[in-house]
Amino acid sequence: MTVSGNLFILSAPSGAGKSSLIKALLQQSNDRKMQVSVSHTTRDPRPGEENGVHYHFVSKAEFEQKIAAGEFYEWAEVFGNYYGTSEAAIDAQLAQGIDVFLDIDWQGAQQVRMKKPTVTTIFICPPSRQELESRLRSRGQDSDEVIADRMAQAQSECSHYQEFDYIVVNDDFDQAVTDLQIVISNQRLKRSQQSQKHAALFDALLAE
Amino acid sequence: MTVSGNLFILSAPSGAGKSSLIKALLQQSNDRKMQVSVSHTTRDPRPGEENGVHYHFVSKAEFEQKIAAGEFYEWAEVFGNYYGTSEAAIDAQLAQGIDVFLDIDWQGAQQVRMKKPTVTTIFICPPSRQELESRLRSRGQDSDEVIADRMAQAQSECSHYQEFDYIVVNDDFDQAVTDLQIVISNQRLKRSQQSQKHAALFDALLAE
Repeated sequence: MTVSGNLFILSAPSGAGKSSLIKALLQQSNDRKMQVSVSHTTRDPRPGEENGVHYHFVSKAEFEQKIAAGEFYEWAEVFGNYYGTSEAAIDAQLAQGIDVFLDIDWQGAQQVRMKKPTVTTIFICPPSRQELESRLRSRGQDSDEVIADRMAQAQSECSHYQEFDYIVVNDDFDQAVTDLQIVISNQRLKRSQQSQKHAALFDALLAE
Repeated sequence: MTVSGNLFILSAPSGAGKSSLIKALLQQSNDRKMQVSVSHTTRDPRPGEENGVHYHFVSKAEFEQKIAAGEFYEWAEVFGNYYGTSEAAIDAQLAQGIDVFLDIDWQGAQQVRMKKPTVTTIFICPPSRQELESRLRSRGQDSDEVIADRMAQAQSECSHYQEFDYIVVNDDFDQAVTDLQIVISNQRLKRSQQSQKHAALFDALLAE
């Protein structure tokens, strides 16, 4: 019997280093199957983006039909384009024993939590305000106004940290990866997972 | 500010290897403070046993006074002697940031859970029925009746595995130690602990 995978939400303000952490996590997954969820979107593919790999590219009509049918764990409209996480696609991955990561913001996290209360939510934090500011600044030659805007958005994201199950502070990068691995591995040791995995053992131990 | 330690219950049938696992866990604790709780008992000290180290040795009258005053997280009477876990002693350890392990059975676990719902409970399991039988057998030249008795008791303990938060199967010893470390480390990454530990960080991140 395949033991179901677990669903994780990873949220962070821009500048917390989430993308690099997820990349390292997938590279160090060893024998365990882990995947980042592929979102649906109505925006046009950019050069190099593949359908089904970077996004599932769908039409606006198709997306709205899926909304109406309640097919998304979460969805949002950003600058006139839709983005969403398909329930059926995620559940199929989980049923194959794959751990799935959703890279979404606190609003998406709230929606998923409503539909799937067993989701494990992780908030990734920069190590200090100065570090956050310098990371937001180093992204290019932006005006003070643009930086201030990014900072305000990062703060808005951070203000929801109390809604998450776990907090990982990305101070030492390797330690942060280890922390994420601990949270992921811990889920597999929970009674619900272990009684699935070791059902035959418990049957044998408890037999007359 | 000292971040509180966490309280863990480790239960197992006799023959699951719990004592060796706890020993290895304490040896590999690195910089983190971990201690096994010292129980109170009314039985006489055996040669080599020190008061306050192996047990807190108290009189029957003293123990019964503590029961009446509700001073135990859990207690039991075994063959005419009392054994119990003092709430004040544990709470003082936790307040110092020490992770505390209670080495008790499912009945004790039930009592502690009632008084302290935040306790994390772990059930340690032998890898197979044959292995359990052979471990119970290898303890000496006992009669079949004695072995059958031990087996029945082990099965009775195992029948409560569904009441625990986590299950660790002691198949590969090193992996079992790692699994215990994961559950322990995971607790420290929970929001409640991390918001204590990084209170200043969140204040700074959210300041105007």
